[in-house]
Amino acid sequence: MKYRIEKDTMGEVQVPADKYWGAQTERSRNNFKIGAAASMPMEIIYGFAYLKKAAAFTNCDLGVLSSEKRDVIAAVCDEILAGKLDDQFPLVIWQTGSGTQSNMNINEVIANRAQVLKGFEIGEGEQFIKANDDVNKSQSSNDTFPTAMHIAAYKAIIEITIPAVDKLKNTLDAKAAEYKNVVKIGRTHLMDATPLTLGQELSGYAAQLNHGIKALKNTLPHLAEIALGGTAVGTGLNTPKGYDAKVAQYIAQFTGLPFVTAKNKFEALAAHDAIVESHGALKQLAVSLNKIANDIRMLASGPRSGIGEILIPENEPGSSIMPGKVNPTQCEALTMVCAQIMGNDVAISIGGMQGHYELNVFKPVIAANFLHSARLLGDACVSFDEHCAQGIEPNYKRIKELLDNSLMLVTALNTKIGYYKAAEIAQTAHKNRTTLKEEAVRLGYVTPEEFDSWVKPEDMI
Amino acid sequence: MKYRIEKDTMGEVQVPADKYWGAQTERSRNNFKIGAAASMPMEIIYGFAYLKKAAAFTNCDLGVLSSEKRDVIAAVCDEILAGKLDDQFPLVIWQTGSGTQSNMNINEVIANRAQVLKGFEIGEGEQFIKANDDVNKSQSSNDTFPTAMHIAAYKAIIEITIPAVDKLKNTLDAKAAEYKNVVKIGRTHLMDATPLTLGQELSGYAAQLNHGIKALKNTLPHLAEIALGGTAVGTGLNTPKGYDAKVAQYIAQFTGLPFVTAKNKFEALAAHDAIVESHGALKQLAVSLNKIANDIRMLASGPRSGIGEILIPENEPGSSIMPGKVNPTQCEALTMVCAQIMGNDVAISIGGMQGHYELNVFKPVIAANFLHSARLLGDACVSFDEHCAQGIEPNYKRIKELLDNSLMLVTALNTKIGYYKAAEIAQTAHKNRTTLKEEAVRLGYVTPEEFDSWVKPEDMI
Amino acid sequence: MKYRIEKDTMGEVQVPADKYWGAQTERSRNNFKIGAAASMPMEIIYGFAYLKKAAAFTNCDLGVLSSEKRDVIAAVCDEILAGKLDDQFPLVIWQTGSGTQSNMNINEVIANRAQVLKGFEIGEGEQFIKANDDVNKSQSSNDTFPTAMHIAAYKAIIEITIPAVDKLKNTLDAKAAEYKNVVKIGRTHLMDATPLTLGQELSGYAAQLNHGIKALKNTLPHLAEIALGGTAVGTGLNTPKGYDAKVAQYIAQFTGLPFVTAKNKFEALAAHDAIVESHGALKQLAVSLNKIANDIRMLASGPRSGIGEILIPENEPGSSIMPGKVNPTQCEALTMVCAQIMGNDVAISIGGMQGHYELNVFKPVIAANFLHSARLLGDACVSFDEHCAQGIEPNYKRIKELLDNSLMLVTALNTKIGYYKAAEIAQTAHKNRTTLKEEAVRLGYVTPEEFDSWVKPEDMI
Amino acid sequence: MKYRIEKDTMGEVQVPADKYWGAQTERSRNNFKIGAAASMPMEIIYGFAYLKKAAAFTNCDLGVLSSEKRDVIAAVCDEILAGKLDDQFPLVIWQTGSGTQSNMNINEVIANRAQVLKGFEIGEGEQFIKANDDVNKSQSSNDTFPTAMHIAAYKAIIEITIPAVDKLKNTLDAKAAEYKNVVKIGRTHLMDATPLTLGQELSGYAAQLNHGIKALKNTLPHLAEIALGGTAVGTGLNTPKGYDAKVAQYIAQFTGLPFVTAKNKFEALAAHDAIVESHGALKQLAVSLNKIANDIRMLASGPRSGIGEILIPENEPGSSIMPGKVNPTQCEALTMVCAQIMGNDVAISIGGMQGHYELNVFKPVIAANFLHSARLLGDACVSFDEHCAQGIEPNYKRIKELLDNSLMLVTALNTKIGYYKAAEIAQTAHKNRTTLKEEAVRLGYVTPEEFDSWVKPEDMI
Repeated sequence: MKYRIEKDTMGEVQVPADKYWGAQTERSRNNFKIGAAASMPMEIIYGFAYLKKAAAFTNCDLGVLSSEKRDVIAAVCDEILAGKLDDQFPLVIWQTGSGTQSNMNINEVIANRAQVLKGFEIGEGEQFIKANDDVNKSQSSNDTFPTAMHIAAYKAIIEITIPAVDKLKNTLDAKAAEYKNVVKIGRTHLMDATPLTLGQELSGYAAQLNHGIKALKNTLPHLAEIALGGTAVGTGLNTPKGYDAKVAQYIAQFTGLPFVTAKNKFEALAAHDAIVESHGALKQLAVSLNKIANDIRMLASGPRSGIGEILIPENEPGSSIMPGKVNPTQCEALTMVCAQIMGNDVAISIGGMQGHYELNVFKPVIAANFLHSARLLGDACVSFDEHCAQGIEPNYKRIKELLDNSLMLVTALNTKIGYYKAAEIAQTAHKNRTTLKEEAVRLGYVTPEEFDSWVKPEDMI
Repeated sequence: MKYRIEKDTMGEVQVPADKYWGAQTERSRNNFKIGAAASMPMEIIYGFAYLKKAAAFTNCDLGVLSSEKRDVIAAVCDEILAGKLDDQFPLVIWQTGSGTQSNMNINEVIANRAQVLKGFEIGEGEQFIKANDDVNKSQSSNDTFPTAMHIAAYKAIIEITIPAVDKLKNTLDAKAAEYKNVVKIGRTHLMDATPLTLGQELSGYAAQLNHGIKALKNTLPHLAEIALGGTAVGTGLNTPKGYDAKVAQYIAQFTGLPFVTAKNKFEALAAHDAIVESHGALKQLAVSLNKIANDIRMLASGPRSGIGEILIPENEPGSSIMPGKVNPTQCEALTMVCAQIMGNDVAISIGGMQGHYELNVFKPVIAANFLHSARLLGDACVSFDEHCAQGIEPNYKRIKELLDNSLMLVTALNTKIGYYKAAEIAQTAHKNRTTLKEEAVRLGYVTPEEFDSWVKPEDMI
Repeated sequence: MKYRIEKDTMGEVQVPADKYWGAQTERSRNNFKIGAAASMPMEIIYGFAYLKKAAAFTNCDLGVLSSEKRDVIAAVCDEILAGKLDDQFPLVIWQTGSGTQSNMNINEVIANRAQVLKGFEIGEGEQFIKANDDVNKSQSSNDTFPTAMHIAAYKAIIEITIPAVDKLKNTLDAKAAEYKNVVKIGRTHLMDATPLTLGQELSGYAAQLNHGIKALKNTLPHLAEIALGGTAVGTGLNTPKGYDAKVAQYIAQFTGLPFVTAKNKFEALAAHDAIVESHGALKQLAVSLNKIANDIRMLASGPRSGIGEILIPENEPGSSIMPGKVNPTQCEALTMVCAQIMGNDVAISIGGMQGHYELNVFKPVIAANFLHSARLLGDACVSFDEHCAQGIEPNYKRIKELLDNSLMLVTALNTKIGYYKAAEIAQTAHKNRTTLKEEAVRLGYVTPEEFDSWVKPEDMI
Repeated sequence: MKYRIEKDTMGEVQVPADKYWGAQTERSRNNFKIGAAASMPMEIIYGFAYLKKAAAFTNCDLGVLSSEKRDVIAAVCDEILAGKLDDQFPLVIWQTGSGTQSNMNINEVIANRAQVLKGFEIGEGEQFIKANDDVNKSQSSNDTFPTAMHIAAYKAIIEITIPAVDKLKNTLDAKAAEYKNVVKIGRTHLMDATPLTLGQELSGYAAQLNHGIKALKNTLPHLAEIALGGTAVGTGLNTPKGYDAKVAQYIAQFTGLPFVTAKNKFEALAAHDAIVESHGALKQLAVSLNKIANDIRMLASGPRSGIGEILIPENEPGSSIMPGKVNPTQCEALTMVCAQIMGNDVAISIGGMQGHYELNVFKPVIAANFLHSARLLGDACVSFDEHCAQGIEPNYKRIKELLDNSLMLVTALNTKIGYYKAAEIAQTAHKNRTTLKEEAVRLGYVTPEEFDSWVKPEDMI
């Protein structure tokens, strides 16, 4: 491989000749060989591209950067956002905890790519754009990285997570309406209970997701606050007057999302409570979805020795040894995602709680786990919706068979003959493997006519 | 000990003669000898007292309970709320997962105590009030227990947690204002960075708590929804028309809190996402407080070999072996509470994600962990506020000494001579153990006058 | 209330006149009003009693304490261990993170009680035994508290947890043997699969617990290492030569457990990895038990609309509204305990990971969570064993009905006619709601005689 | 793109013409678009390759597979293990919870690649090797996937994790020996305490890792048990006699690791307690490493306003805005890894606790998190060792300055003049900002000569 020499304040470094990155990126590549290469999420890189462009515009507006420099920086940012430079970001999550080296990776790539756009070879001639003095002007890793985190996180929630959960919720709402009159046995403690309709049961799932989406949206205002303008420690050192508010406006304009400058920059650098808060809502959704998916696979269990009240789509052969087996695989994928998100929440919280003084240095691990969750949750909801939820159908025959057989219909008699006598009827029928009606009449507590008019599943919902 | 005989649908049970509880409570005592006795939180019992009274009023209004029965039920509920019957609730958290037996404990105590208020001995004569048919009328454990959970949780947050966090936030705000001009060295990565003021540093903590309180308040509307009226599976079987909305109104009236009936009762029984959501905000506060307390103990570390920039109150001798030692004990208590709340969050989420069909049966463990967190967080904030935060004072001498000595003041030169030359100055001074000014001038990058006018900590904040 | 005046190095404090504790305990009571009073686990206090007695013996043997002082210290320790002074330990978990104040609580109680044993009133006369100079001789909170933790934790595991898990395992083993020929349908993905016996199914649970007990025992050698002798920072300052090994021997002798002095005292003070390690095994058991209890409640679900393959004891009425309902309440209590232990594991790990320099200051929260888990797990296993596992019985009729009906018996044909044809048979029977045999013959893949001789559930196990 | 038609029991599927995978893999690709493509860890694929080869050998030995088929299956497995077919495994973690589709992915690739090795085009001619009937002979996803998990996990621990932790431990041991006489101030509660040597301090870290490695090794016997031979539900249906023990021997032979057949196959399919157990030890190491890395960055903090007792390597420029700044970046990477592992532990435990009946269907998420942790922990230890630990050096000047200044040296006087007088000396010196000696003499408790002979830091260690 061919190399060129790049320099930073510590000296010279050999860099692959065809790469735009520079000395600090290369140092990081060598110093942090931890896990898979290039694990820093691309969403963070794109977040940086937005903010570097916004910073260039703001610096120019405020008279500290020429419009020529602004334009070439913006041009490279647009290339990054178009996905043209994805292979220029080789760094890993497990680097410096402020993400300094990823900030420098962007700075170096923009500076070197700008040189090429200006007609030079990489590294040739005097740099028209300097990584630190121009691209990073009025910035620090300490305020850019958290800003990139918020941009990436907010976008992921708005573009991936919420639409996906919403889509699934809408399916469940539609199914709830469709089956609102399908009376079935209820179950509490996994034991037979009084009836409800399948629609009611599904409406509970939709309500969970509805609450979850609301909870997630409640966290967005905090996430909309960006740290940019705080620079090294939150004071905004080396930024021109008015920079913070203006740069936030540019970011809002470029992303189409309602970002504002953080009211307190010290909080915005030293803590990631906004991410903790927002991921708390993702975790809540995981809690909900685990319950929902688990119920659905239990309701669909069988085909002959399970509950079998609903049918779900048969998407693939279920067993490499048992011919003809079909499994609730979408439920399994979704619940595995939920387990992952529960773990990610702990990783994020532990990262969040360990900041020191003016800076939290668990930024990359916090960001990566958040984006992982937001993406997985969204993808899994779409997959579950399309390959499972939309295909849910009642197994009417089975539903009716179980309902008619149930002992818990006796609850309808509580208000007529009291809890104690009703219990006696149910227990006797259970012991004798008979029907409620038989025992109710035999015990002399009701007439057959009374029983028929009082114990109607369709009136019990 | 003397016993009397009580009966339930399963037969006879011996109960201590002087206790108001009945057969089912006694069965539970014997069947669940797990952990400390009477561990079911009293807040849950009080929550039940509110709702039993509200149910009696509603049942009476709707014509299914006499006013005489209503009044005696209400009278016992008032006694419970006054703390007069605290020793009548011997059950543990680790019982049936719907809390059925605690519901029956209340029902039995109310019924038996009512008999006494009517002039009988416990268990003597025909029961004027029946545990199931009267006290529990229009109810099920499945909707009462979650209602008691929400009442207890909401009250704990409003009465204990929020005022306590608010109090600490106000102290930090006041300290931030008081020390807003005390310039000190900043630290990122635990390493010296550019300066800020002590007030700014403290303002970041206050901002964290402010965001945390907002996040917690965002969860209250979900928590205000109560399950009562759903009865066994969410359908509201055996409740009179209009019951659910009315009973919520009574609960709101009796507690002075804005409770409303849950829009979807199926969700309200089968899931505890509202508690998961609200505890997520408590966890966020724990994350914040861990950072704050950790910073404060590091800032106060010493007295001679630490950072020592602030002084905190000396509350007790710190060591049984090292004479004269004083430790940041309030920080330690608070961070231990934070660790506990992080754990509680996992316990709650795991409980929340494992509901089955129409009922989540992890109610007691969810409730107990929530109330534990809400209380610990509140108490710890009050303790930390009174015994630590209010007493924070700058160690001016030490602050000045460290500030004057710092190499990171060089950052002020970036915009004058560029990042690279500034770095060279800092590195040279570091290597030679000299001052920035000496090296800046010696290297020929600035004049002494320039240095003095450009590098002013008080202009860097 | 009457008070007396006590003094410490910070000055005078009023203490309730009838209490043995002194100034530092009283300061702690006032400075840490967090959560329930006296929450510091009594097991820790007893752990201290063992070690204070052992220290007195060792100090005497090594010539730094008179035998008269030794004997009176030992006498009070014996009183504490007999439970006679339980009300003398009012402190909470949420105090200084080294547990210094609980160490002083013991020191003060021993000193003051000794004075009474010597014939004086509390606080009267010159102290025969001094809290710091005698009771605490050759000790520091920093080595005593972790020693008390290990004593308490080891005892809890040996006396409560292991016997309880073992008892449950033995029941499961016996049930596995008893039902080793009861062929039933297997289930994977909650879907019907090939058969196994009920005994085999139960043997898997027993194997889990067997592995769990082994894992727990693997952690005991680390837990057997005690910190005592390290004093303030691990160097053993102010201890006589030979003290650490000898004091460990006395503790081993007094407790009957194989305690040894920690090879590295710096680790023993600054980290609680031994507790983290041991609780990891408790968490593993919780993972196992959650699976087991969850399976059992699903297998017992019904009575008419569930799986219903096993019967479990009916211990109490299951519903306050649904008469005759019986629920798997022991499974619920046990799985709630498992959720708690999962949370406790996070609390302990977070405490464990945040030590600083020579001391971990999350000792009380780590200790309390550990002891909580060890106790809950033990109690819950005993309860589950006695009130559920011992009563498990097959529902033979239901088991046979489901087995005969199963489509997955087709797997037996794989090795005869190949996976593809076998799948076709199963799918056709599923679609037509017919039997495997009918379709196998109709499709011409086997003769009726072949089917009968090849597809025998009892040969498939 | 060109496609060919592949079939499974559900019908026809279009597959990219140049890929070896078949119908079921393609279905899975389309049905599970969740997260990044091909996320199933390659280590699992390699685990499968070992076991498919072992199964072919065993099947042949036991007379159910021809040696010709054995050899071609083995040849493809060897190609997989040589990394030649890495791009043939496109599936994700978030699929069916038994990993069935990844098992089929391997089966299909082996079958189709075998056809090519036999001289055909992919999909051309009758398959010499059939995916289900030959490659998967005597197997099920349910026993192969957990076997692949154990092979992958065991190898990762042995090849990556343990050597890396060991390497770091050895460095710390060597540093502990090198600096065993460098007396420095100790710190407890972040406050000055009695002295110890830097070597002692470092020895505590080494002891932590030593215990952690032991704990990890304790888990290996459980991990060495493999499920293969259990097939669908643990009974070993469709396996020839003696298969399970023999196939384990072949796996042991091919991997060079001590695998044995699981004593209880029901446990081995239905639970992943072995992984939970082993990851518990990884989590313990994360707890240890977080403490160690955190201490090291605090000890190295500065350069002028921190503790500064040790120097660590300067690997890269630390700030994009603050020139000359150097940060403890390896500590940050390592502590981020620790946070991740804490989260992974929760994900694994939640997956482990939710198995149902004969099968745990959280296998892929459990496997992926385990392998992620094992790899990250190993890589991070190597990185930390090479770029940080090996370069740790004492800052002798600073260490001496802080030591000489310390007030806690007064502890040496406890045994001479008692705790109370010693405390008075320390408190007075603290208040007056004087030295211990001045105040000790001034208060008349010791002579200057006594002070000098009693208070010697080098005697206090």
